[in-house]
Amino acid sequence: MIKRLCIFGVGLMGGSLALALRKAKAVNEVVGCGRSLPNLQQALELGILDRYTQEPRVAVDGADMILLAVPLGAMQSVCASIRTHIHQDAILTDVGSAKASVVRDVEAAFGYVPERFVPGHPIAGTEKSGASAAFDSLYEQRRIILTPLANTDPHALEQVRKMWALTGGVVEETSVAHHDEVLAATSHLPHLLAFGLVDSLAQQGEREEIFRYAAGGFRDFTRIASSDPVMWRDICLANREAILTSLEHFEQDLEQIKDAIANGDAQRLLACFERAKAARDRFRDLVE
Amino acid sequence: MIKRLCIFGVGLMGGSLALALRKAKAVNEVVGCGRSLPNLQQALELGILDRYTQEPRVAVDGADMILLAVPLGAMQSVCASIRTHIHQDAILTDVGSAKASVVRDVEAAFGYVPERFVPGHPIAGTEKSGASAAFDSLYEQRRIILTPLANTDPHALEQVRKMWALTGGVVEETSVAHHDEVLAATSHLPHLLAFGLVDSLAQQGEREEIFRYAAGGFRDFTRIASSDPVMWRDICLANREAILTSLEHFEQDLEQIKDAIANGDAQRLLACFERAKAARDRFRDLVE
Repeated sequence: MIKRLCIFGVGLMGGSLALALRKAKAVNEVVGCGRSLPNLQQALELGILDRYTQEPRVAVDGADMILLAVPLGAMQSVCASIRTHIHQDAILTDVGSAKASVVRDVEAAFGYVPERFVPGHPIAGTEKSGASAAFDSLYEQRRIILTPLANTDPHALEQVRKMWALTGGVVEETSVAHHDEVLAATSHLPHLLAFGLVDSLAQQGEREEIFRYAAGGFRDFTRIASSDPVMWRDICLANREAILTSLEHFEQDLEQIKDAIANGDAQRLLACFERAKAARDRFRDLVE
Repeated sequence: MIKRLCIFGVGLMGGSLALALRKAKAVNEVVGCGRSLPNLQQALELGILDRYTQEPRVAVDGADMILLAVPLGAMQSVCASIRTHIHQDAILTDVGSAKASVVRDVEAAFGYVPERFVPGHPIAGTEKSGASAAFDSLYEQRRIILTPLANTDPHALEQVRKMWALTGGVVEETSVAHHDEVLAATSHLPHLLAFGLVDSLAQQGEREEIFRYAAGGFRDFTRIASSDPVMWRDICLANREAILTSLEHFEQDLEQIKDAIANGDAQRLLACFERAKAARDRFRDLVE
């Protein structure tokens, strides 16, 4: 049972965790802290929060679990503002989409990586953001990736693991570097491509008509381009190396497809599309 | 009222048209022709067809409306096989995803473009294929693009327009070239990127794990990679020029994003993502 959960950034991720823990009757009190007063007020009205404050040091007072759910670009400053105010037994964890950068930022703020800091990333979300987008089943059957470090306190790790298990999530562990590589390929790159394609089309003439002719496939393909721009700017900067590696890899493969089209290489195109369909169908059977 | 509708290629598109016309009580008899006997048999059992044959000249006998719903690569040979057997009053139309290539193939098969040929493309579909994927509401509120030529018979055009209107589709007209450019950008390019990304990931090591970590955004983004590989191979070859132009345009824009990430240009990334989100949100309000 968490006595006082303090959430920095009460949006889709933080809000949904609070709602899930409330549903599981696993938390006594939830305190929110964030920059947007209307969002905090809404979170209060939606029953996500018991109270809120915009003073980080007040927010963490007496909290036994502190969740960092702010955009990656705000992690360091939030940590710096609570550093001397968190209780020695408090556990610190986060939901950042890139892990190496969060570890760097925590270290920069504290001067070291606290033993009771457990880096985490729930592989869940929608293209919506803010407290109003939160719902208590967001994490059900989703993977929650924890990336403990060599010095991470096993008890803190266990507490964070239990917290996520209560949301219905499937908790796993991997290394920081591996997490960042895999997420660059399966999440960050697709978002970049979707943002890039929609922006590319939107800047062409006859924009209205282009979108008017778009079909269901385009809708699905570009849905993630409605995601929060600030969050994704921060992810791109935070996981820069892995994203660039992944993007370059993809560009090379795309060049092969382009050559095949230009050369009318029907066999090569078919082979590529068949491999992709087989892989995507297997993936569908795995998760859908 | 269509007396006898003959469908070449009884899959998602052709099958759904037959079901929609039956529901509207706008067709007396539907005859199917295709290469897969099990698929034709299934279409019969599903009530899509009244009968089927694998002899093209038998299929078109007495048909007043002939629908070409085969992959683009099969258009020319189908037309060649029916050329001397279709009734002089019969209307010929198609659902090909690229229009210039169909017009070229019809011309190559007939030696000229028949006046009663009406090129068409319903902007509808799912990633599924085959007669079993057909359903009568596929075309409801979808755009049906007709691209009549200078010599197209106005009466034939009107009949095709009426046929599609009965499915609940919104019929529009544009030029062949314009259709092919817009579809390259909004449909063909997204499919290429989805196929390309999934194939690229599937060929990397730790494939299972990569897909295991993928979230909802990845599912939506890559859903179209489950589409029919043969159909998409044919589209890539048929609309080659427009697709390459569109792909090059996109690659240039993607290069800018890559530079912005490499240079840590937060402002430029945010501006791009914000423009994309605004455009995608407007699109959502328009169609979803």
